[in-house]
Amino acid sequence: MRINGQNYRTIWPDSDGRRVHVIDQTRLPHHFEMRVLDDYQAAATAIKDMVVRGAPLIGVTGAYGLALAISHDPSDASLQEAYHTLLETRPTAVNLRWGLDRLRNLLTALPLEERAAAAYREAGRIAEEDVAACEAIGEHGALMIKERAKKLKRPINILTHCNAGWLAAVDWGTALAPIYKAVRLGVDLHIWVDETRPRNQGASLTACELLGENIPHTVIVDNAGGHLMQHGLVDLVIVGSDRTTRTGDVCNKIGTYLKALAAYDNDLPFYAALPSSTIDWQMRDGVSEIPIEERDPREVTHISGRQSDGARVEIELTPQGSSARNFGFDVTPARLVTGIITERGVSAAQEKALINLFPEHA
Amino acid sequence: MRINGQNYRTIWPDSDGRRVHVIDQTRLPHHFEMRVLDDYQAAATAIKDMVVRGAPLIGVTGAYGLALAISHDPSDASLQEAYHTLLETRPTAVNLRWGLDRLRNLLTALPLEERAAAAYREAGRIAEEDVAACEAIGEHGALMIKERAKKLKRPINILTHCNAGWLAAVDWGTALAPIYKAVRLGVDLHIWVDETRPRNQGASLTACELLGENIPHTVIVDNAGGHLMQHGLVDLVIVGSDRTTRTGDVCNKIGTYLKALAAYDNDLPFYAALPSSTIDWQMRDGVSEIPIEERDPREVTHISGRQSDGARVEIELTPQGSSARNFGFDVTPARLVTGIITERGVSAAQEKALINLFPEHA
Repeated sequence: MRINGQNYRTIWPDSDGRRVHVIDQTRLPHHFEMRVLDDYQAAATAIKDMVVRGAPLIGVTGAYGLALAISHDPSDASLQEAYHTLLETRPTAVNLRWGLDRLRNLLTALPLEERAAAAYREAGRIAEEDVAACEAIGEHGALMIKERAKKLKRPINILTHCNAGWLAAVDWGTALAPIYKAVRLGVDLHIWVDETRPRNQGASLTACELLGENIPHTVIVDNAGGHLMQHGLVDLVIVGSDRTTRTGDVCNKIGTYLKALAAYDNDLPFYAALPSSTIDWQMRDGVSEIPIEERDPREVTHISGRQSDGARVEIELTPQGSSARNFGFDVTPARLVTGIITERGVSAAQEKALINLFPEHA
Repeated sequence: MRINGQNYRTIWPDSDGRRVHVIDQTRLPHHFEMRVLDDYQAAATAIKDMVVRGAPLIGVTGAYGLALAISHDPSDASLQEAYHTLLETRPTAVNLRWGLDRLRNLLTALPLEERAAAAYREAGRIAEEDVAACEAIGEHGALMIKERAKKLKRPINILTHCNAGWLAAVDWGTALAPIYKAVRLGVDLHIWVDETRPRNQGASLTACELLGENIPHTVIVDNAGGHLMQHGLVDLVIVGSDRTTRTGDVCNKIGTYLKALAAYDNDLPFYAALPSSTIDWQMRDGVSEIPIEERDPREVTHISGRQSDGARVEIELTPQGSSARNFGFDVTPARLVTGIITERGVSAAQEKALINLFPEHA
């Protein structure tokens, strides 16, 4: 997708076929910079520090991280060490384990000298599959949006939380893919962008994406969505997911559950858009089973942004002596979810319906 | 209440009996400074710029503002001009109109030469009544907290949104008064403090108050409350109110409605604590009738805090080109409110129950 009129993906291999390039998402929206990952430790740090983030993208970055490790040392010990280091960077999103498992299973069956080439090939394949899945999610979701927009004589207002756009994936995104595709179908729309404290992925990344694609949008604080819904200013909510149970519980960025409650209370449709790689087919109860990452409280007590002279500055928000806690995700129970938009179509948030679309997990 | 170990009120007249002193709440939590209001324009600016804020406090500041106007010029024209200027500063809280009406009605009946002294006397009386009402709210609420805490073998966890503490009133506060009084009854408690974007009155003012009173607390982003409730980490929610309908709908800082929905979904008690001066006995439907202030979008796109060198700095959070909107309040329908804590006792959020406590409004 476009930034400053030019097309990018979030991650791509170097022309030497070894090093990996990513967009540094901690610098957006005010600075657009790349970073080079040249070993698996750099990939792990990039995931941990959220240089790359978003369930699909950390799955792909994890896979490239293993490829980087194998290109330096193809042994089983090297593979194991890199696997565990990468896996421990973020506990909630299931894609990371999914991507790492897929590479590890493939590589352990190969002789050492074939591993490096196979690892890059497979990581590249995961990236291409993600692009295709996101594009398909976009197409299924766009039809749903178009259908709902038809009844309105004004732009359809869609609220989204956090960033589940192309910056969270390799391209297109999950929650934003239906929006990008709907625009291409000629649907007139406007997006309410939750800023998404504490890391403000909405205010920085989603706003940045929508600017790049020239889509009308308005940034709001996370507190505002309920009021907007009460006053008819939201027609539809679409979010992403970091892990989804086979029963349709959706684990996504902290605060998603509050928006789902408000949508339900105001009789508004609430959709989660996700590639099936984020579905954890082992889990049935999201609230009790999905591990919720707790991050550094400093993300709550401090915030960074652009000073008037253009410099990036960090400031403290809370009084010294007050402590903070910082939970990264929450779980929206399936009963609050109108539908799940996957690469194979839109499903009810129910085990039966999901298994209908993905019978291989019956 | 205490800041740095010393007792303060939020507003007090000068020893000359004319000028009025206030704590500058835009400078907290990092700087503790006073401001002097020497005419009604200064009072209006202080309300508009949120140097003083909180429904009870802006009612008292409005009253002192009229007194300042009258001390410069006791004519009816002066009274009218100051009345309208002060009234237009903030549209949502009903206390402002209530305080201004009370002074205007008193003063217009008096000869010019008696007005100034009467105005200061009445403003002082409103302030004293507010302190008494908040203290009574604290006592009624503390008994409710004590009762609920009895069943627990650990500290009771109370979540609050925005700042409805003594900084929002003259002393004691509304939502925090029951907490201050419960502590004095020996109740072991811990407060979850919503930071309360966009102006962060929770992270700056509530945290600052609780530090001053040495009460255990943790600052969280506004997105976190639902997750905490799902995991048994909240026992009780108490918020303030800027306007309450006779039917028990509660208008409070934007985002309150989302917390009420989460409390309801998790079967947790949700209380609003308010002096009866915030009840608008004319209104029956909060969502459709209460005017919701829309403030400068800059409060969403920019934020201020303390840089590492101690300086206060403002930074930009959103990309240039993205617009924002900034609604100040939302309405929590009575059906989500467990009870309303007033100076006369705790009432169900229902017209009949409220009228029972306040039969003069039948």
